[in-house]
Amino acid sequence: MPKQLKKQIVVLKLSGSLFFSNEFDRIVNVILSSSERNPNLRIAVVAGGGPNAREYIAVAKRFGVDQATLDEIGIAVSRLNALVLASALGEISIPYVPKTLREVAESLDAYREKRLVVLGGLHPGQSTNAVGALVAEKLKADRFVNATDVEGVFTQDPRKYPGAKKLCKVSPKQLSEILGNESMAPGGYDLMDPVALKLIERSKIKTWIIKCDEKRIGEALSGSKIEGTEIVF
Amino acid sequence: MPKQLKKQIVVLKLSGSLFFSNEFDRIVNVILSSSERNPNLRIAVVAGGGPNAREYIAVAKRFGVDQATLDEIGIAVSRLNALVLASALGEISIPYVPKTLREVAESLDAYREKRLVVLGGLHPGQSTNAVGALVAEKLKADRFVNATDVEGVFTQDPRKYPGAKKLCKVSPKQLSEILGNESMAPGGYDLMDPVALKLIERSKIKTWIIKCDEKRIGEALSGSKIEGTEIVF
Amino acid sequence: MPKQLKKQIVVLKLSGSLFFSNEFDRIVNVILSSSERNPNLRIAVVAGGGPNAREYIAVAKRFGVDQATLDEIGIAVSRLNALVLASALGEISIPYVPKTLREVAESLDAYREKRLVVLGGLHPGQSTNAVGALVAEKLKADRFVNATDVEGVFTQDPRKYPGAKKLCKVSPKQLSEILGNESMAPGGYDLMDPVALKLIERSKIKTWIIKCDEKRIGEALSGSKIEGTEIVF
Amino acid sequence: MPKQLKKQIVVLKLSGSLFFSNEFDRIVNVILSSSERNPNLRIAVVAGGGPNAREYIAVAKRFGVDQATLDEIGIAVSRLNALVLASALGEISIPYVPKTLREVAESLDAYREKRLVVLGGLHPGQSTNAVGALVAEKLKADRFVNATDVEGVFTQDPRKYPGAKKLCKVSPKQLSEILGNESMAPGGYDLMDPVALKLIERSKIKTWIIKCDEKRIGEALSGSKIEGTEIVF
Amino acid sequence: MPKQLKKQIVVLKLSGSLFFSNEFDRIVNVILSSSERNPNLRIAVVAGGGPNAREYIAVAKRFGVDQATLDEIGIAVSRLNALVLASALGEISIPYVPKTLREVAESLDAYREKRLVVLGGLHPGQSTNAVGALVAEKLKADRFVNATDVEGVFTQDPRKYPGAKKLCKVSPKQLSEILGNESMAPGGYDLMDPVALKLIERSKIKTWIIKCDEKRIGEALSGSKIEGTEIVF
Amino acid sequence: MPKQLKKQIVVLKLSGSLFFSNEFDRIVNVILSSSERNPNLRIAVVAGGGPNAREYIAVAKRFGVDQATLDEIGIAVSRLNALVLASALGEISIPYVPKTLREVAESLDAYREKRLVVLGGLHPGQSTNAVGALVAEKLKADRFVNATDVEGVFTQDPRKYPGAKKLCKVSPKQLSEILGNESMAPGGYDLMDPVALKLIERSKIKTWIIKCDEKRIGEALSGSKIEGTEIVF
Repeated sequence: MPKQLKKQIVVLKLSGSLFFSNEFDRIVNVILSSSERNPNLRIAVVAGGGPNAREYIAVAKRFGVDQATLDEIGIAVSRLNALVLASALGEISIPYVPKTLREVAESLDAYREKRLVVLGGLHPGQSTNAVGALVAEKLKADRFVNATDVEGVFTQDPRKYPGAKKLCKVSPKQLSEILGNESMAPGGYDLMDPVALKLIERSKIKTWIIKCDEKRIGEALSGSKIEGTEIVF
Repeated sequence: MPKQLKKQIVVLKLSGSLFFSNEFDRIVNVILSSSERNPNLRIAVVAGGGPNAREYIAVAKRFGVDQATLDEIGIAVSRLNALVLASALGEISIPYVPKTLREVAESLDAYREKRLVVLGGLHPGQSTNAVGALVAEKLKADRFVNATDVEGVFTQDPRKYPGAKKLCKVSPKQLSEILGNESMAPGGYDLMDPVALKLIERSKIKTWIIKCDEKRIGEALSGSKIEGTEIVF
Repeated sequence: MPKQLKKQIVVLKLSGSLFFSNEFDRIVNVILSSSERNPNLRIAVVAGGGPNAREYIAVAKRFGVDQATLDEIGIAVSRLNALVLASALGEISIPYVPKTLREVAESLDAYREKRLVVLGGLHPGQSTNAVGALVAEKLKADRFVNATDVEGVFTQDPRKYPGAKKLCKVSPKQLSEILGNESMAPGGYDLMDPVALKLIERSKIKTWIIKCDEKRIGEALSGSKIEGTEIVF
Repeated sequence: MPKQLKKQIVVLKLSGSLFFSNEFDRIVNVILSSSERNPNLRIAVVAGGGPNAREYIAVAKRFGVDQATLDEIGIAVSRLNALVLASALGEISIPYVPKTLREVAESLDAYREKRLVVLGGLHPGQSTNAVGALVAEKLKADRFVNATDVEGVFTQDPRKYPGAKKLCKVSPKQLSEILGNESMAPGGYDLMDPVALKLIERSKIKTWIIKCDEKRIGEALSGSKIEGTEIVF
Repeated sequence: MPKQLKKQIVVLKLSGSLFFSNEFDRIVNVILSSSERNPNLRIAVVAGGGPNAREYIAVAKRFGVDQATLDEIGIAVSRLNALVLASALGEISIPYVPKTLREVAESLDAYREKRLVVLGGLHPGQSTNAVGALVAEKLKADRFVNATDVEGVFTQDPRKYPGAKKLCKVSPKQLSEILGNESMAPGGYDLMDPVALKLIERSKIKTWIIKCDEKRIGEALSGSKIEGTEIVF
Repeated sequence: MPKQLKKQIVVLKLSGSLFFSNEFDRIVNVILSSSERNPNLRIAVVAGGGPNAREYIAVAKRFGVDQATLDEIGIAVSRLNALVLASALGEISIPYVPKTLREVAESLDAYREKRLVVLGGLHPGQSTNAVGALVAEKLKADRFVNATDVEGVFTQDPRKYPGAKKLCKVSPKQLSEILGNESMAPGGYDLMDPVALKLIERSKIKTWIIKCDEKRIGEALSGSKIEGTEIVF
């Protein structure tokens, strides 16, 4: 099956704050045009939960709901985001949102005219970043691109420390130290979490952390030089 | 099985605008206290999609998504609302959101210590009001109470005609004429739709249309005199 | 994906009385030959329940079974009819009977060498006519053809009024008046029901009501002039 | 759990020719009264396909459908029969038709107020008699009663040989010889087939073959002396 | 669809003792090379449970577990064997293990670039040999090859009787006599069982019994002269 | 529902090396007797994959299978172990192995006479230890007990450093340092992994690490003083 070997596979995690933002339509369009330009490109998009997830989780939290169930609520919101994005992408997208890793892997094989699948979270105790890394493993993806609310990895959280510097490359060990003992709160800060990092490390997945905007998503899908932070091994 | 015959079964449709409103916590509490007061009460709550559904649908519509898929997006939002409500209700609620009529019927039978199930939409082309009527048929419910944004059925839409009068009782035929040729737009006006009305009629379901607030929900669950509009045959 | 745009998609509702009738083999053959003649034709067939459904429903009714469950029995019979038709159609048909709208939509995408899917009812409270309309929406079908026991829409029920005249074209409003306040009895008269009509209206689906025989099915699939009644907007 | 040990479990295979026969209502009533009389009785009913199955299979056969698919059509009809019987039995019955052995076993455990489950065929290549034997194994049933169109096992087929004698007891070996090299045609003669016999033998299931009428079903459920043929080891 | 008619379909049952044996890698490689050599070849592999199944079953038996559940444990082991084989075969294989006959049939249709599916047992009371025969029926396979621990069918069990002679051809009747009254113990002797034989007979499936080694598997897949025993009608 | 509040819920992770060991029967018996002694005890057992998982994974690895799929193979083995354990435990156990967190939570609610559920892994990228912690969160368990191959947490790996000292209590931070940068290899060392630790921390789950033998399991289930290492916050 030599044709299949030539396919380029990109896993793209989209920040949940994208949905309902002004950027949404532009991102849909850059995905559509990237796909049209390169018929051999296969894309797995992982949608985050974003502010909407945090709102729903906040309601449930007021009633003392346990953490695993809060995770499940966050997953439900990310899947809703995924459904809307898949619908907006139209003909090129698998028409439903897979709920297991197996379904993700099957979808791009079974639907031969489809070039793209959109999913949300898969399982409690696992962020959508970790989902992105797992999907990259399973699909033997060429790269995993995490599109976040920031420009990349900084020496410190740029929202708190104005003097923080962006890193072009970072090792998993460094990134782990920068992330520190970050909590696993459902709907939390989404740069990269320890579980995702462990998966990236065990399979040496080529990973970039970029800002979620039209220009960078275009770069990420075309495979040209990507502006952001690369994780190196 | 004489014990089961004594159970009182109420189907309660909650307007989707309840979620994220100030009324939410009060409604959760009145359901909890009604359930505690009457251990023989079984409740099936149907959550509407509300403004959140309309927002998601609006995004998809911008990209030319078909009506059946817009319905599916509306259903996904109503199920998310249902999940959060079920979680907030805690111990008394079936811990998941059923996706078929069969699952609804089974849930209250299989989980004997549970007194309540929360669901959203079930199927495209069918409003959450029609879902409420179907569930009432399947469970042979004692009554179906539709909690909406208005006080009951008026001679005309009270939001447009200040002189409209509230009706205490209404026949299906009258209600059908008042509703007129209302469209079946996904996420539309939720007083009662023609499909729901047909189901109510074919099974002669005891139905009330009430305002979605703490006091009326309390009345609806206790079975005392309910303030609103009753559908009579 | 320009090729996909050229596909012609027809949704064909077949009267349940077809099964076990003399016409059955001829209809199977005309579907097979239409499909062979036009490789770009995609067909979704919706099988009705027919007399067999009415018999099973009558048994259950004797024991006081509720309307929603009677609907479920009717759906089960229509799916059995669908299974036999799909098997008879052989190689060109998806080999199973989808149970949700999503499965219908996926089936023709996923099985690229298949040109046809056969389904029965999908959900209680929704006739197989409404199912046909929903499928037409979801697949963005070129036309929806309802093959019934009569020649088309008449000014009155032709089985009761010999002087009734067949209409070539009818508006949804007119048709709604002709149908009158028809009941939603499970397994009832299958010309067109209010729910199906609402869906046809909201999506402006090109719809024909024809007699279920070899000649008209052939016309309906080839897209040549169709003898029957067209719904116009 | 000492209470559970006192439960009496009977697996009852009902001939498919029962459905639509005059006997149907009487059988429903004798099952209802037997269950009411003995609250510790748990019943798993397996519905055969009968003449309706043979009719549907005959249609498919005309089009050259393979044997495994013909089995699947027969299973679909037996499940439809089961659905109608379960609905007719009302409150005492699990409200759906299980499709796997696991679902059968779970149903009576999970629904504590239910005393009965009705199923049809489970899997191609396996008659509903074999299904009855499997269910008896899985539930560790007290007895398996196969209610057929004949009075019991005869020395020869009583429909062909008027001089055939009914046997009160029969060993698996004898029965195997009487059955001879009977074919496994979908929807075939339903006294007992080699697969069912192998299962009965490996688990030494107490088995009776009786006529499917009110009196014998009553005996079979009460556990009083059963008129028919017993399989002895 | 003339292209599909040219496809060659082989069902290959692999003895469960293959897994963890030295032969495993060689068999994987001969399947890969056979598939590469003939792009029109479609293979359904049925994995047996083997010694691993017998070990797990022995543990459960010590605790008095019923026969149907022992069958389920055997099926679980055969599916695990199938999962590992499917993973090892990589790109040419459907990436999951189907659990129903319908899933088997669909898999090779839906995944057009896949040439092979691997499954284990499907249902209690049915050996993996019978599964192979059912799959052969459903796929209208060109041949069913049962790769066992012995060279073919002998006049007597060659492991007990050194003078036993291998038969080149055998009729179902002869084979049935040779097999005698073999028990249906879960995880038992796997030459061929009565149920499998009945299925082979009813559909006149071209069947070979061969030794499970590289050379014979190669012959079985290429369709050249196969060394072993052929079942003739 | 005051009765439910009195239930004691213990999550017990069992080392995969238990299966096929001499200890197996003793552990089954101590679970049975603990359950009989305390009717209010509810137990969720998580079975590890153990040496059998490592063997199957090693076979797949030889063929270059990706890490996510290796995880899936490990999960399949742990579920097989769970199936055998559930079968051996007999009447007190839910009769199947749940595959999602939701199924785990539902099982103990739905089957009121069952006191125990046995599961294996749930999702790739998540060890069975993390599964134990998630289940403890979801069930609001009284404690999570991880029964391993060692006596508890040591200052260093006791298998490599004979001078290592066992700790009675350990903080998550300390344990994290002791575990170091341990890899997430499928089927790896099972003391406790970073993901499990994060979950334990976020929900402050009362956790013990003990040796997997009869005496300690008995202590863990009775809630008397548990010999091993406690995680303290």
